[in-house]
Amino acid sequence: MTQSDITIEDLSKVGQEDAEYLVSLIRTIPGFPKEGIKFRDFMPVLADAKALRILMKALEAALPVPADSFDSIAGLEARGFLFGPALAVYLGKGFIAIRKAGKLPPETIGEEYDLEYGTEKVEIETNAIESGQRVLIVDDLIATGGTAKAAMDLVQAAGGTVVGFSFVMGLDGLDGLDKLDGRPTSTLVSMPA
Amino acid sequence: MTQSDITIEDLSKVGQEDAEYLVSLIRTIPGFPKEGIKFRDFMPVLADAKALRILMKALEAALPVPADSFDSIAGLEARGFLFGPALAVYLGKGFIAIRKAGKLPPETIGEEYDLEYGTEKVEIETNAIESGQRVLIVDDLIATGGTAKAAMDLVQAAGGTVVGFSFVMGLDGLDGLDKLDGRPTSTLVSMPA
Repeated sequence: MTQSDITIEDLSKVGQEDAEYLVSLIRTIPGFPKEGIKFRDFMPVLADAKALRILMKALEAALPVPADSFDSIAGLEARGFLFGPALAVYLGKGFIAIRKAGKLPPETIGEEYDLEYGTEKVEIETNAIESGQRVLIVDDLIATGGTAKAAMDLVQAAGGTVVGFSFVMGLDGLDGLDKLDGRPTSTLVSMPA
Repeated sequence: MTQSDITIEDLSKVGQEDAEYLVSLIRTIPGFPKEGIKFRDFMPVLADAKALRILMKALEAALPVPADSFDSIAGLEARGFLFGPALAVYLGKGFIAIRKAGKLPPETIGEEYDLEYGTEKVEIETNAIESGQRVLIVDDLIATGGTAKAAMDLVQAAGGTVVGFSFVMGLDGLDGLDKLDGRPTSTLVSMPA
């Protein structure tokens, strides 16, 4: 349950006190969902009204591009849904949902990506994005970057332009950010994979 | 694609113009996910910054109990995650996630409920709720009420008190609200099942 392996990155932009308060609520659970994995539980941050407010302030303060340089926020089912629409409301933007295959009604566009074992497919509604619409992608975690890359490809296939990525957590040493074609990114906190 | 079968209920509290604007963005897709079902697609509401703002205003205006009579908002994976944390930020509350079985790290409490075919299990983190904490449950849709009832039982099993329910959409004639032990509810719009 030690927090000592969590490093404050862009979260520092809300100030040391608020940053430490938020980090103190991230739970580390070794061995979940399987042996050898350290699960980082962000739910206690969301459950705390003060920490949830700090989270929104932090995502705004850390935005990888100015808030007026994008029109919409896109986020991925299911944990990206916890942050994306909230940040969209907070910033006065719309929210575009990227869902697992089969959940969205037609017409949709899909994108497959590799997981550790097998592949996963995500979809977006074809008319969710107008041509040239500028989109910020939000997700809870960047690990190998496969999911974030699939989200980018999907938004661009639908006619949008991905201007950057906002991540809450990043795992060290997996080079996930290298998959994102040099797009600007922010990561609030990082930790060993 | 007609909107004519959607009735404005508590959504009227934001005024006719805003209410009609929001309703105009709900898409109806007959035959999805299967024959005989009319799917109501709320994603275009979220994707539109103005409509998303109206949605938050409407959920606040329609709250079934005063905002100072609850501490937290709880919502269900995955579509409840689209509204719950956003409303929590908007109202200055915390958000408690109710997830499908196996997604949350231990310790958890679970609750099974019946679906049309078979059963589903949802879980909450045991320490997500303090004893006596007052919780408003938010979900996108109330149909037969099975999911909402399971969410209520779960929150109460974890020591919380469910003070009411905020639904975005309700299906007529399924008596879902009758399952909620007389708790106060609000429903923004309703439509035939």
